Amino acid sequence: MNQIKVFSPATISNVACGFDVLGFPIYSIGDEMIVKKTKKKSLIITDITGYSVPYDINKNVSTIAAKAMIESLNPNCGFDFKINKKIIPGSGIGSSGSSAAASVYAINKLLDSPLNENELISFAMRGEVVSSISEHADNVSPAILGGIVMIKSLSPLEVIKLPTPKDLYCFVINPKIEIKTSFSRKILPNKVKLKDTTKQVSTFGSFIHALHTEDYELIGRSLNDYLIEKHRKKLIPLYDEVKSIAIKQGALGCSISGSGPSIFALTKGVEKANEINRLVTELYKTSGNDFSTYVSKISEKGVSTMSN
Amino acid sequence: MNQIKVFSPATISNVACGFDVLGFPIYSIGDEMIVKKTKKKSLIITDITGYSVPYDINKNVSTIAAKAMIESLNPNCGFDFKINKKIIPGSGIGSSGSSAAASVYAINKLLDSPLNENELISFAMRGEVVSSISEHADNVSPAILGGIVMIKSLSPLEVIKLPTPKDLYCFVINPKIEIKTSFSRKILPNKVKLKDTTKQVSTFGSFIHALHTEDYELIGRSLNDYLIEKHRKKLIPLYDEVKSIAIKQGALGCSISGSGPSIFALTKGVEKANEINRLVTELYKTSGNDFSTYVSKISEKGVSTMSN
Repeated sequence: MNQIKVFSPATISNVACGFDVLGFPIYSIGDEMIVKKTKKKSLIITDITGYSVPYDINKNVSTIAAKAMIESLNPNCGFDFKINKKIIPGSGIGSSGSSAAASVYAINKLLDSPLNENELISFAMRGEVVSSISEHADNVSPAILGGIVMIKSLSPLEVIKLPTPKDLYCFVINPKIEIKTSFSRKILPNKVKLKDTTKQVSTFGSFIHALHTEDYELIGRSLNDYLIEKHRKKLIPLYDEVKSIAIKQGALGCSISGSGPSIFALTKGVEKANEINRLVTELYKTSGNDFSTYVSKISEKGVSTMSN
Repeated sequence: MNQIKVFSPATISNVACGFDVLGFPIYSIGDEMIVKKTKKKSLIITDITGYSVPYDINKNVSTIAAKAMIESLNPNCGFDFKINKKIIPGSGIGSSGSSAAASVYAINKLLDSPLNENELISFAMRGEVVSSISEHADNVSPAILGGIVMIKSLSPLEVIKLPTPKDLYCFVINPKIEIKTSFSRKILPNKVKLKDTTKQVSTFGSFIHALHTEDYELIGRSLNDYLIEKHRKKLIPLYDEVKSIAIKQGALGCSISGSGPSIFALTKGVEKANEINRLVTELYKTSGNDFSTYVSKISEKGVSTMSN
């Protein structure tokens, strides 16, 4: 195999109760990438369509991750990247994570899979780090593994694939205003109340329990955030209004996706997600902001090979 | 039924990763109580053996909890309490929680069980509050329900009984120095680092996942505390030495029980717990402190009726 075309899903991270430690993929949007082996032992990006990202291989997350990977593997070839960048950078739905996951997955396949999924996550994280202040794994892990994934620890890297309830759907609205991850991280306090920590710990624990017992009502009572939402929601136009619609329509929970500005809502069944989509779309048309919305089943599938 | 004798187990709370939200009973030590209906509609403590606790019904946790309960139920009788106080107050193994649980359980039985377990926990918490600064449920809940219990929220009260792996044992050492819960709460900071919060959230989540998957190794990798241990361990003689022995002997984890000074270690199988008991006992004899140790299976059984 000399060439591969891959699809890498967008991802919702943080998921209200799991700041920096939880994420899942949505399959209705993602980056596409064609990666081709080259004789010359170097990396080159020869085409970028969709949203604008750097051609410079030292500035593009895909090639930064790829570079770390080939420095370790030292293969007898180089790689040519054609990127169809479908996820707008700074959207909060794992734009850079998707590109990094696509790149390491593609190269691994082209080299006959020398690395396991954990190793792929490690290399993909190296690409992620340029778009953020600190290394994080809550986008690349679900993009690579699929399903609901928790980050147990970063060093050593330990990720846990959690049970994904069958009837879980996600609505996402992505207002087309860019919030840089580095900026939305800076506005967070360094310290939080011990009381809020205790609440966050228990709500995350009950979310994990709810996934194992497939208890949708408990999932609903566990999608709370006591740490982050209050600081970041100020950056997002009509945040409270969107959340209010989602909750009124029976969403299990609604919060900021990643570092924003995207907002997600989880529902039991697709109908509620579609109805929230209809109502939020109506509302957001009045905001003056451009936006996209998505409805997706929460899939067990991560980055995958596409037929050419 | 006019009289009942009950046994209410000691409890380990916090359990490293679950500050204020996690607990389980140990059955090798607990308070015993004989409660008798009286014609006079009042509460009286007529006998206290074992450790010294107040005869004043407005100062004893058992009768404070009982008072709240009968003010709500308004039964046509009063109650006489004979308390065998076996758990030393301020021990960190749920001394007051055990007494409060015994009392509400006994009265409920004598009144033909008008209240469910959740309601019993609520009333028992009213007794607990006198020994602590704030209301907490992580001792009374496992004392009443048995098994590993997590507190999802205090208001409204929601407790979740978690799966208890079959081969889980607990070693406890209780140095006979008193640390008041109110004091050990005061030495905690009001705020903690967001980074530590994230670590605590993920370690608690992986603990819950490990219980569901009965993964003892992951239980071991999840019994970490990034918030509390560093502050409270200073109050406990030979803390680091005890922990070092436990970990060396293959304990899954070792940390402070409740607000201390007791220290617990969890093991897979009873043999390791016994060996830790032997070695820690040897060590602690050199400390000059009086102490007791216990080894217990983690039982699914909570407070229960004893044959007279």
